[in-house]
Amino acid sequence: MGICGKDLIKDGWFSERGALWPGQAMSLQVTDVLYSGRSAFQDLLVFTNPTYGTVLVLDGVIQVTTRDEFAYQEMIAHLPLFAHPAPVDVLVIGGGDGGVLREVLKHPSVARAVLVEIDAAVVEASKRYLPALAAGFDDPRVEVVIADGAAYMADHVDAYDVIITDSSDPIGPAEVLFQPPFYAAMARSLRAGGLACCQGECMWLHLDLIRPLLSACRRLFPTVGYAYTAVPTYPSGQIGFVICAKDAGVDLATPRRAPSAAVQGRLRYYSPPVHAAAFVLPEFARRAVEEGGDADGGRTAADAVADK
Amino acid sequence: MGICGKDLIKDGWFSERGALWPGQAMSLQVTDVLYSGRSAFQDLLVFTNPTYGTVLVLDGVIQVTTRDEFAYQEMIAHLPLFAHPAPVDVLVIGGGDGGVLREVLKHPSVARAVLVEIDAAVVEASKRYLPALAAGFDDPRVEVVIADGAAYMADHVDAYDVIITDSSDPIGPAEVLFQPPFYAAMARSLRAGGLACCQGECMWLHLDLIRPLLSACRRLFPTVGYAYTAVPTYPSGQIGFVICAKDAGVDLATPRRAPSAAVQGRLRYYSPPVHAAAFVLPEFARRAVEEGGDADGGRTAADAVADK
Repeated sequence: MGICGKDLIKDGWFSERGALWPGQAMSLQVTDVLYSGRSAFQDLLVFTNPTYGTVLVLDGVIQVTTRDEFAYQEMIAHLPLFAHPAPVDVLVIGGGDGGVLREVLKHPSVARAVLVEIDAAVVEASKRYLPALAAGFDDPRVEVVIADGAAYMADHVDAYDVIITDSSDPIGPAEVLFQPPFYAAMARSLRAGGLACCQGECMWLHLDLIRPLLSACRRLFPTVGYAYTAVPTYPSGQIGFVICAKDAGVDLATPRRAPSAAVQGRLRYYSPPVHAAAFVLPEFARRAVEEGGDADGGRTAADAVADK
Repeated sequence: MGICGKDLIKDGWFSERGALWPGQAMSLQVTDVLYSGRSAFQDLLVFTNPTYGTVLVLDGVIQVTTRDEFAYQEMIAHLPLFAHPAPVDVLVIGGGDGGVLREVLKHPSVARAVLVEIDAAVVEASKRYLPALAAGFDDPRVEVVIADGAAYMADHVDAYDVIITDSSDPIGPAEVLFQPPFYAAMARSLRAGGLACCQGECMWLHLDLIRPLLSACRRLFPTVGYAYTAVPTYPSGQIGFVICAKDAGVDLATPRRAPSAAVQGRLRYYSPPVHAAAFVLPEFARRAVEEGGDADGGRTAADAVADK
């Protein structure tokens, strides 16, 4: 049972057909299949593509390609980290490829970065096939725990400044990561002043999932926002982030710190202006996700400009 | 010779394989083929898809789908139009589907909108299969000219406030629209204070085309900018715009006017904040397209923030 990623390769092309994006599929030419197999949790496929480099696929869904992964890893990590004045202890749930960890470690204030991944096979595959992502695992500040994220957080209350949930889609092992009890566990595991940032699906495909998720978050956190980034190999080319702050009145769209010149020079996607722009949603999405907004009325962006 | 769009349909799926995006392809399920045929200029294919509605394909390349077309039409039209204080005469080159025209006509100051399309078959196909886009053709302010855009502009010097070039990719009939003589013709056809906005390909795929194009523009116009929008069915999910102003010192990223509440209510993508955010490029692209910038040095966004 379950999807076998290798079965989605026909005539030398992998086609990402999935129930979450009916009628559309990203297709990538396959140069070589480096690995195909099943862990206790999911199906893994690693192949190479002439444009996108090495591609990691879990349960038939593209997770990272070495060409465009920075557009995702930098944004899911730096949006909450630069919205925090001085993050010291950081927890990453999921993210077994190590890419988010690599970005977390670029913050000099971070003393400890714990990665809790349920599937050791993802960490092992990344260390073998995706060394540019797995680089983060070698840092002495890192602790890797193979466990369930919600269970880990239950034992670590009031312990983290930033929690980043880098999950796959809400079908399969990551389903629970999109439900209110998981968000409640994050709220308890964060310290005062803490922020959480979670993979939040695509506004072109999943507004029906995003709207109730944001409503649930607003009952758990006083400050909730939605931002997005554009990643060519993700379905519809975009992916969003649900960002929650434990304090009220936090301006999530305005970074609290700027990267040093040395760190900025190592970033390929994020900058302070990119941070602010990531929260500016197209009108159809803004109307759908803003509290009290609807598709035909409510306060418009034009009103906001007219007030200035 | 030439691509036949219908030949790209296999087992009920259309796959957009093209020389401009090797190794990757957007695939869309085909419910019904509404039209397939060849004009004097190119191959036309119209089909329906369960998620994206009606899809227009020229020479094997997706041009519009009725689900996501507004993300492109609104941005290519409203970025230059709202950067102009009071556009009266507007020229659209290409754009035979009528979608850009529909957006131009939302500006009450516009007295005359001329569409110059080389291929009458595109206009006819749109009127028949894409009525939501072709709606603009019925407005009394519209004049449709079936002709070569560069030749038309040579006869209309100092005549337009805004020129929008809504072209297909630089292979086939649109190749000349990406070359300096075409940009020079736009500069001559614009009045003082005028702006041009042209389809500018994708920063993930075509920086090698975008960089020299921007350099050429900087020799023809005193103000040149690059913005982008995210469209799920375009290659890599994004498309850029080259925006040029005939005057020096124009702040292209700041709208000169806000839409009225009535107009804003009819827009599904554009808003004044979206306008500004469209010019904020990811670092890899900003370094590549900014004059004097390079991948490893130059002034960074962090420097700009630090200066504040």
